[in-house]
Amino acid sequence: MIKTDILIIGAGPTGLFAVFEAGLLKLKCHLIDALPQPGGQCSEIYPKKPIYDIPGFPEILADDLTKNLMEQCKQFEPGFTLGERADTLEKQEDGTFIVTTNKGTKHHAPIVAIAGGLGSFEPRKPLIHNLESFEDNGVEYIIKEPEFYRGKKVVIAGGGDSALDWSIYLSDIASEVTLIHRRNEFRGALDSVDKVQELKDTGKINLITPAEVVGLVGHHELKAVVVSQAEHIDKEYEVECDHFIPLFGLSPKLGPLGNWGLEIEKNAIKVNNALDYQTNIPGVFAIGDVNTYPGKLKLILCGFHEATLMCQAAYQIINPGKRYVLKYTTVSGVDGFDGTRKEAPKAVIKKIE
Amino acid sequence: MIKTDILIIGAGPTGLFAVFEAGLLKLKCHLIDALPQPGGQCSEIYPKKPIYDIPGFPEILADDLTKNLMEQCKQFEPGFTLGERADTLEKQEDGTFIVTTNKGTKHHAPIVAIAGGLGSFEPRKPLIHNLESFEDNGVEYIIKEPEFYRGKKVVIAGGGDSALDWSIYLSDIASEVTLIHRRNEFRGALDSVDKVQELKDTGKINLITPAEVVGLVGHHELKAVVVSQAEHIDKEYEVECDHFIPLFGLSPKLGPLGNWGLEIEKNAIKVNNALDYQTNIPGVFAIGDVNTYPGKLKLILCGFHEATLMCQAAYQIINPGKRYVLKYTTVSGVDGFDGTRKEAPKAVIKKIE
Ligand SMILES: Cc1cc2nc3c(=O)[nH]c(=O)nc-3n(C[C@H](O)[C@H](O)[C@H](O)COP(=O)(O)OP(=O)(O)OC[C@H]3O[C@@H](n4cnc5c(N)ncnc54)[C@H](O)[C@@H]3O)c2cc1C
Ligand SMILES: Cc1cc2nc3c(=O)[nH]c(=O)nc-3n(C[C@H](O)[C@H](O)[C@H](O)COP(=O)(O)OP(=O)(O)OC[C@H]3O[C@@H](n4cnc5c(N)ncnc54)[C@H](O)[C@@H]3O)c2cc1C
Repeated sequence: MIKTDILIIGAGPTGLFAVFEAGLLKLKCHLIDALPQPGGQCSEIYPKKPIYDIPGFPEILADDLTKNLMEQCKQFEPGFTLGERADTLEKQEDGTFIVTTNKGTKHHAPIVAIAGGLGSFEPRKPLIHNLESFEDNGVEYIIKEPEFYRGKKVVIAGGGDSALDWSIYLSDIASEVTLIHRRNEFRGALDSVDKVQELKDTGKINLITPAEVVGLVGHHELKAVVVSQAEHIDKEYEVECDHFIPLFGLSPKLGPLGNWGLEIEKNAIKVNNALDYQTNIPGVFAIGDVNTYPGKLKLILCGFHEATLMCQAAYQIINPGKRYVLKYTTVSGVDGFDGTRKEAPKAVIKKIE
Repeated sequence: MIKTDILIIGAGPTGLFAVFEAGLLKLKCHLIDALPQPGGQCSEIYPKKPIYDIPGFPEILADDLTKNLMEQCKQFEPGFTLGERADTLEKQEDGTFIVTTNKGTKHHAPIVAIAGGLGSFEPRKPLIHNLESFEDNGVEYIIKEPEFYRGKKVVIAGGGDSALDWSIYLSDIASEVTLIHRRNEFRGALDSVDKVQELKDTGKINLITPAEVVGLVGHHELKAVVVSQAEHIDKEYEVECDHFIPLFGLSPKLGPLGNWGLEIEKNAIKVNNALDYQTNIPGVFAIGDVNTYPGKLKLILCGFHEATLMCQAAYQIINPGKRYVLKYTTVSGVDGFDGTRKEAPKAVIKKIE
């Protein structure tokens, strides 16, 4: 059982900044995310794109924002349960909560902060009849650990940035990379498209287009994919492989959060924006894109503010009756849980003679 | 008469970011500030100190935050009335407002956003009986334009960063700089103290300590200050000068804003935080440190969120009935009023063969 002060569901920008604000109040956080990496929409949907409306950044790449937020909160040593979906929320008799993931990992905390964005990112799956029987047994939708594919034969399907970038990346690791796409045209950064062209020309990537994977072959373990090439519609053939990785994008689904007894409106969780972004379940907050209230804007900067106010309320619940006095970071410095201290250089008092 | 869409009172971080958010909605802004430069508390009180809780910045100097915010909003061409205090607010029959400063400058807008922080920064003045008769006539509390002092004899009083830094700066511009402080010890950045010591040693700054300016001499125009030196309490003497600049710090005063018919609580303006940060006067908003509501935190990041929601409400008032659809800057880019356009590099669609 993982124990923490504030259990945060969703490691997007809102959840990450909540770790920092909680840390200033000496509260520890643990984050659960269905994705294998932190960053939420920023890292999953548009990592290499610039954002122009983060206050103080005339321009920042979404990936850099994630990196900065990770750096900003790391002194408060957040825990992570990545690649797992928070499935159930149970309120204990003492008012605390247990949250269990789809893989059975249990988390226990007095406060739950849902920073789930548009929902848990779930892969778009191709329509192949026996697909699910090979899941985690040769079929993966998300690459968590590239080294896992060392020396393996890999078939990637897809025509966007993920398919291009992972084909490039794995071409150095896997023994064989085959990229299959149902069109001849790919959609992605020019660099990536050109690099795949080059790797194809030098024989480091096998390219099969326009084509689709229509079947999987194997007994318990994947042995090959069945490919149907559009130009020879009658001709289906097998491509031997150890892994088939369809990269058709991830799409967010509110999913299990919808069954936690929370008031839902417009596919989002209703909160008390006049006070602290608490939901109808006391002790459960919703911050960032996942919440709704009159005038709500699904913007990153709004999640930052909501996270900050939520932490204050969490502090009051965890420390009932204790008076909190706001301290400026500039004046008081920041004491990390890892023993680090950041502080402004002090003014000197010195004689001039 | 200066005309604009949103008249912002206060050019601190909150007011500056409001310019950017308004610009995204194609609304023009004009800012009034009592200080001669934008940045509010950040630039006036702690320009060289690091802030640790601006989201996405593990650390940023207050001055750099101001610079970044100026850079972020400059494409929306904000107007500035600096060095003047907004003194009166008059509601017109058509529901628009006229705001007049202490120097008589008039501003006209359908929306007023008060981002006045802890109030208008007003100088702390030394107790000298005939001080006011020389104001703007040899006595200045704020240095707006250093070139104004070229070739002049200047007496600066004070023992903190401002007094140190301006003495250093003007030692290259003025014909004579005298620094007077009531103690021998100065309080400031080590660099600044050491530099003043050096300039004193090389005769570029006259230092008189421990001493105080107790009188002003002149007829209409300042001719000299009367100095009382603590060690020779009976001995008062004159130091010839064209300008006397007491730099004892500025302190914020809510001041005139208190008389505008706004609901005030705890020295701040009450707003509707459940919706749009509007005050009890429709069309007048209060954002950032200047407002109050249940759970209010006087933090920069909160001002950013409040400014953003305020702009949405302002848009609705200025464009009644027009439906607003949120656009992500990453997706839609940013079109400046100055003709510039910022946008994310587009993905290509390209054949690999
Ligand atoms: C193309 C695009 C461009 C954008 N441009 C801008 C812009 O310019 N400016 C701006 O401010 N915003 C922009 N946005 C919106 C911005 O990305 C979101 O506002 C922001 O990501 C919300 O952050 P969040 O932390 O609340 O949620 P998210 O970033 O959505 O993160 C939520 C995380 O929670 C996880 N999660 C949800 N439910 C569960 C569960 N049950 N179990 C485990 N994990 C779960 C998800 O997997 C996800 O990783 C853009 C969005 C897109 C798609
Ligand atoms: C030493 C110190 C350290 C701090 N550290 C932090 C920190 O680490 N993190 C953090 O988030 N915050 C910190 N703060 C607080 C932060 O500076 C404020 O929250 C922030 O400046 C508020 O911004 P604002 O734009 O709302 O108001 P301000 O920055 O106060 O700006 C308001 C401006 O309005 C002007 N004004 C007011 N009334 C009038 C009028 N009638 N006419 C003309 N002009 C007027 C004032 O002159 C001023 O320039 C700190 C503050 C101090 C003093």
